[in-house]
Amino acid sequence: MNHKIVSYMLGRIMVTEGLLMCLPLAVGVLKKDNVSVMAFIISILVALGVGLFLASVIGKKEEEMMLAKDGFAIVALAWILMSLVGALPFYISGEIPSYIDAFFETVSGFTTTGASILENVELMSRPMLFWRSFTHWIGGMGILVFVMAIFPHNTGRSMHVMRAEMPGPIIGKLVPKVRETAKILYLIYIFLTVVQIVLLTFGDMTFFESVVHTFGTAGTGGFGVKIDSIGGYSAYSQWVIAVFMVLFGINFNVFYLLLIKHFRTAFKSTELWWYLAIIAGATLFIGIDIYSEVGNIADTARASFFQVTSIMTTTGFSTVDFNLWPSFSKTVLVILMFIGACAGSTGGGIKVSRFIIAIKSIRRDIKKMINPRSVASVKFEGKALDSTTVNGVGVYFAIYFILFFVLLLLVSLNGFDFETNFTAVAATYNNIGPGLAGVGPMSSFAAFNPFTKIVLSFAMLLGRLEIFPILFIFAPFMWKKKS
Amino acid sequence: MNHKIVSYMLGRIMVTEGLLMCLPLAVGVLKKDNVSVMAFIISILVALGVGLFLASVIGKKEEEMMLAKDGFAIVALAWILMSLVGALPFYISGEIPSYIDAFFETVSGFTTTGASILENVELMSRPMLFWRSFTHWIGGMGILVFVMAIFPHNTGRSMHVMRAEMPGPIIGKLVPKVRETAKILYLIYIFLTVVQIVLLTFGDMTFFESVVHTFGTAGTGGFGVKIDSIGGYSAYSQWVIAVFMVLFGINFNVFYLLLIKHFRTAFKSTELWWYLAIIAGATLFIGIDIYSEVGNIADTARASFFQVTSIMTTTGFSTVDFNLWPSFSKTVLVILMFIGACAGSTGGGIKVSRFIIAIKSIRRDIKKMINPRSVASVKFEGKALDSTTVNGVGVYFAIYFILFFVLLLLVSLNGFDFETNFTAVAATYNNIGPGLAGVGPMSSFAAFNPFTKIVLSFAMLLGRLEIFPILFIFAPFMWKKKS
Repeated sequence: MNHKIVSYMLGRIMVTEGLLMCLPLAVGVLKKDNVSVMAFIISILVALGVGLFLASVIGKKEEEMMLAKDGFAIVALAWILMSLVGALPFYISGEIPSYIDAFFETVSGFTTTGASILENVELMSRPMLFWRSFTHWIGGMGILVFVMAIFPHNTGRSMHVMRAEMPGPIIGKLVPKVRETAKILYLIYIFLTVVQIVLLTFGDMTFFESVVHTFGTAGTGGFGVKIDSIGGYSAYSQWVIAVFMVLFGINFNVFYLLLIKHFRTAFKSTELWWYLAIIAGATLFIGIDIYSEVGNIADTARASFFQVTSIMTTTGFSTVDFNLWPSFSKTVLVILMFIGACAGSTGGGIKVSRFIIAIKSIRRDIKKMINPRSVASVKFEGKALDSTTVNGVGVYFAIYFILFFVLLLLVSLNGFDFETNFTAVAATYNNIGPGLAGVGPMSSFAAFNPFTKIVLSFAMLLGRLEIFPILFIFAPFMWKKKS
Repeated sequence: MNHKIVSYMLGRIMVTEGLLMCLPLAVGVLKKDNVSVMAFIISILVALGVGLFLASVIGKKEEEMMLAKDGFAIVALAWILMSLVGALPFYISGEIPSYIDAFFETVSGFTTTGASILENVELMSRPMLFWRSFTHWIGGMGILVFVMAIFPHNTGRSMHVMRAEMPGPIIGKLVPKVRETAKILYLIYIFLTVVQIVLLTFGDMTFFESVVHTFGTAGTGGFGVKIDSIGGYSAYSQWVIAVFMVLFGINFNVFYLLLIKHFRTAFKSTELWWYLAIIAGATLFIGIDIYSEVGNIADTARASFFQVTSIMTTTGFSTVDFNLWPSFSKTVLVILMFIGACAGSTGGGIKVSRFIIAIKSIRRDIKKMINPRSVASVKFEGKALDSTTVNGVGVYFAIYFILFFVLLLLVSLNGFDFETNFTAVAATYNNIGPGLAGVGPMSSFAAFNPFTKIVLSFAMLLGRLEIFPILFIFAPFMWKKKS
């Protein structure tokens, strides 16, 4: 790869992180929390120092085109570096005494997973809780889309970064210029964030709680501030969060189309309807399954809808301990973990669109088996997909499950039961947060040993960056100097 | 489909099944077991009656070419019909009082799964045990390859049946004429069977035990006659069975190449080496994991090698209760369940070759991402694969895991724990037999309700016939009359 340009970009990202940490620093000052203030000041200095060193001493801004592999390297290394530095405040303040735990928590934040090693989140200080949730918000839209919207770049260069960054199999060409796209996505994101904060303050949440829970929702992250997640808040707050989880799991293309008043195109999105149909179906099935335990329709509907949207959008908030639900409902949730949200949203998982394309190519293959002369193409969102995209989806399923089993094997070395191991991997790899059994919504990831925590941190990064960028950093050819 | 030709073929298969049941009938006569004799006579009459009715009254032998969909319909319906009729002896004799249980057991036999609803197999009579294991042997090579080897057909017609029947992504063109191929595969199968029976009689097994355990090995089935499977037999018997499990999991192409003295080509098989390497690696890892529990190297090696080959080849015999092993070893076994044996063997699972092709196409896709102008093709066994085969593998992974989750969901309705449900589906869908927890090697499938047993029977059929033929029988277009 081109070390200079990669270094330069990483440096800028580090500087940005340093600047972003001024917000939790301000919270610390406001709350007169001296330990937090010190921790953030040191961390900001480290971020700025590393950033300036990378950008100015090692790196160099070059005008030439960036190669695809440089884009992938930037994305993967940025997420790791951001997490390494972002973990410092937790560690320096002593609120998370182990650096590996702090790293796990920060990876979980930036990857919008929401898996936590905290056994009692309520013991943490306000500034740290703010930073923890803020990492979700930053990670949500992708730190690089974020950076791209602020700093000027030439189009060709950003394109590759965008390609590696945007979740989902297809990058919608919203507008011809990538920088413009990033800005529009960013504005939609901010707009929805502000609306949710306002709506939440109307309920029983304080302003602080409204903000942090909105960060968790917007990034489809799931970090909360209470040991029972959202369970202690009013039905109103739960409904607001549930609806916004659904919104943040939608492909942002749809919002853009609504913005430019292309209503018909927006509502013709196949993925949108499948996504909503899966949510509706899962809510109904789980509702029927848990009704006798809950006792009334309103509570059943709220509990079922909240948990379904939380898992499907890969957020991971909870209002009840679904680990105690009957096995059918738990299995529905496990399946939703793998499906995930829409492509081009802040959610994780395999993505609804990949499932649609997979099912359509299965149908095409069956047709071909029955009638070998048939030449049907796979259509999606009204367009015939080229064979590279269709193959890519099949290959993605293969690599996805092969890596899933590798992760499961590594986690099993820790000796926990199968359900804990399986759902711990599923919940981190799909960027959800809580799993079942030992990692259920009322438990934490604290019990795992440091090796497993590192494995699960990589699972989160693999899932969030859609596997390839993280794989690439292990490939020797990536590290060869530009010839 | 062409009802006449499908009916005609199904009729002949039924007649064949009737004739095959004369062997367990003979065992019944020999053992002077009147109840079994009566049960087999009635079942044989039903098989012959149904067979002659289908072949002569409804069906008609037609000279024209058979279409692909007719081939798929024959394969799927033959396996279901064979199981429906093959279950009769167990039910009529009263040895399995529930017909659904008898059907489950027979599907498990013909699909070479080896999952059992018997809580104590030692209570069953000799003739029934013989028939139960014999279904493995019949199923092993595929009942239709079997039928094809006996009855004369025109090449075009058998081709489609063969295509649907042969396990694995590629049908090796052993010899130009399909009938010849079938005969050669069949002879290799019989030869290996005879050698194994002879070797087992040298040990501590009776002749009867040698025969039934060889049936279970050859078909990679796993039905035994003792409640502790192979655990009570000598180390010699265990090693013989383990080695033959490895042999029956190898692509029969390799044996054919050895037969015609193409040694170099035979030993250049990529799949063979991966298969052996996975067995060696898994044996080693599990050996290290269980050594402290077992205590000496010889016993550790035998226990580890036996369980690894048994699961990898999808046989399902056991010498120890691996459900009590540490979670790492159990997870290795769960992963082996999905990998399965070689294509073109009697084993099940996804198949080693599909994994190799998937990994190679992932590597190709990565190359393409890094350098969009690269045009690498996926090579396997020395040849570049056409894009249809490569795509097919990706699509197979997608449909495989989608259906896995559907089956898991249906089984979860029964309310058991996640590990039981997950491994029950994995063990039946991959045609292994025992799973973990509630369906571990020392337990049975008896505790499931009838609905779940039917779901798991379909899981076995889906796995054995590589999904598509079974899916097709649910498709309305299959049932349309030939236009």
